[in-house]
Amino acid sequence: MGKKTLAELRVEIDALDKKVQSLIGERAQLASDVAEVKKAADDNSVFYRPEREAQVLRSIIERNDNLLKDKDMAHIFREIMSACLALEQPLNIAYLGPEGTFTQEAALKHFGHAVSTLDCGSIDEIFHQVEKGNAHYGVVPIENSSNGVIGGTVDMLYSQDLKICGEVEISIQHQLMSADQSVEIKTIYAHQQALDQCQRWLANHYPNAQLKAVASNALAARLVKDEVGAAAIASEAALGLYDLERVAKNIEDKTGNTTRFLILGKESIEPSGDDKTSILVVTKHESGALFDLLEPFKEQGINMMQLARHPIPGVKWEYLFLIDIEGHQEDDKVKVALAEIEKRVLKVDVLGSYPVAVL
Amino acid sequence: MGKKTLAELRVEIDALDKKVQSLIGERAQLASDVAEVKKAADDNSVFYRPEREAQVLRSIIERNDNLLKDKDMAHIFREIMSACLALEQPLNIAYLGPEGTFTQEAALKHFGHAVSTLDCGSIDEIFHQVEKGNAHYGVVPIENSSNGVIGGTVDMLYSQDLKICGEVEISIQHQLMSADQSVEIKTIYAHQQALDQCQRWLANHYPNAQLKAVASNALAARLVKDEVGAAAIASEAALGLYDLERVAKNIEDKTGNTTRFLILGKESIEPSGDDKTSILVVTKHESGALFDLLEPFKEQGINMMQLARHPIPGVKWEYLFLIDIEGHQEDDKVKVALAEIEKRVLKVDVLGSYPVAVL
Repeated sequence: MGKKTLAELRVEIDALDKKVQSLIGERAQLASDVAEVKKAADDNSVFYRPEREAQVLRSIIERNDNLLKDKDMAHIFREIMSACLALEQPLNIAYLGPEGTFTQEAALKHFGHAVSTLDCGSIDEIFHQVEKGNAHYGVVPIENSSNGVIGGTVDMLYSQDLKICGEVEISIQHQLMSADQSVEIKTIYAHQQALDQCQRWLANHYPNAQLKAVASNALAARLVKDEVGAAAIASEAALGLYDLERVAKNIEDKTGNTTRFLILGKESIEPSGDDKTSILVVTKHESGALFDLLEPFKEQGINMMQLARHPIPGVKWEYLFLIDIEGHQEDDKVKVALAEIEKRVLKVDVLGSYPVAVL
Repeated sequence: MGKKTLAELRVEIDALDKKVQSLIGERAQLASDVAEVKKAADDNSVFYRPEREAQVLRSIIERNDNLLKDKDMAHIFREIMSACLALEQPLNIAYLGPEGTFTQEAALKHFGHAVSTLDCGSIDEIFHQVEKGNAHYGVVPIENSSNGVIGGTVDMLYSQDLKICGEVEISIQHQLMSADQSVEIKTIYAHQQALDQCQRWLANHYPNAQLKAVASNALAARLVKDEVGAAAIASEAALGLYDLERVAKNIEDKTGNTTRFLILGKESIEPSGDDKTSILVVTKHESGALFDLLEPFKEQGINMMQLARHPIPGVKWEYLFLIDIEGHQEDDKVKVALAEIEKRVLKVDVLGSYPVAVL
């Protein structure tokens, strides 16, 4: 292989871009044909199919054997699908405003940029906008590793009829760093939010250190570069950037420090091959009620991915359980387990089956 | 053409996706070859070339003759280039934190998602991070149609040596809407920010209306659906969604209601074919000094795109001018005009020539 010049390489890149663009154009045409076929079959046809999107993204990640990272390649295809879908059904997505919140980030991560977004003032408002048909889908936070399950979302899931159509996760990890890790730490700098998210870990490991909130984690990292006896909570990136030493890794109080969001809609989602089912259960007031509830899942060999107890809105001292299990409600063993549980509890409400978050 | 089934169309889409993915993989390889060539030629080689990116995006938009919108196609290629660049030089971008602000949105719009970002607590901090080499580029707001030029950014441009490497714009437009536009408007609902951005227009057109700030513009639109004599300020999308009538179009106080951001870096950018040059000028204390300053541009037929007067930091009653002109500092007529201006004023500082924002 002879060495190519910069100019020659750029000509090749331009030629490739042309091909990619024309193929994406063909894809848009096919997506539009799909919409035509759907419209011909059913006037109320649904154009957005989360299970199909999840399948496409999974095969893209599976066969990704080139230089690009899986995450980046998946992101590019998310945007291609988003743009194609917008041709047939410009999606309107309700999320927690004002613009530029994490819920918006979650909405764009899941749906891509070719959607219009509707900023809502509260979680209730998001449910109402989807319920009324003003938005096709809503994005609400459901749990956060620092604060646990978001009560307001569980309340609404309990009282509303919307279905869960998907999930999306956004994660943050915190590192403790200093200029010289052999020196005792007396002061720890970080943004207030980071201090909160590492509160327990800090209380355990540095009960006597002075915690100082500063404008950003990046600033914290910069400060400790020149301050002996000071440490900062910041990202992996800051560690390398400021040439600091890592004192402790991933110190956030819950592993992953992830916020998980649910996609709400009106349709049931078909199996994608790797799905989750969320249910709400109200148990009887008996000792052993929780055991009775869980037994059928164990018998069927179904993994539980989440179990959270939550007070029933408006009813004192009564609780419901939010449970996420592996599998789709159309899977035989899930069907069997749910039928058995229905006999054992006061109420079961299947909130939806949906593809497990892709990346 | 025989009609294809849904399954057949999906098989075709999958085949296309495979081809697109493999071409993007080839592109990544070529991008990596480009980096090798650059490294061989120069140890301090710069991998990110804004002028080349602008040219690629412009030709993509020019030849875009398929179903996809120019904006969406450009966005897809922005992400492809971002992912390819990340292979050779993972860019670190400083912006105004905390995460989820408009400056972050501007940074991702310009650089794509395959970058790491550094949230800074202030505009000064962004300049310092780039200055020290902790971030490759910084993104700072420079003007905003509601509040004019951002003084803090001009101060820093005056006192620091960084170069402007690019610009990016984010725009918002506001519509006034009600359920029945024939009824007199007594109350206007909107988010506080929207009320601020339309303040002058509202004072002129509805001096007696009661302005009520609510949690979001979407909520405002929903409220007025059932309230006679009420109007909302909200987006074009809300108009259709809530089936409201438009009372007035684009009522934001300055046309476009755009926030413009600058990309700061350390390198000079080569001409891209459609460029802007930003300069800072300190004039003499003479009547006619401003006229003297502008004359050479006029003589050379150079359009001025921005002219803002700003107090010199720390010097009372002295002013500098921030001027944006059409063209690159390597263009002959720009060279002639700048040389002439240098003779007429106390100080000229060319902040940089950079590609005009693409979309």
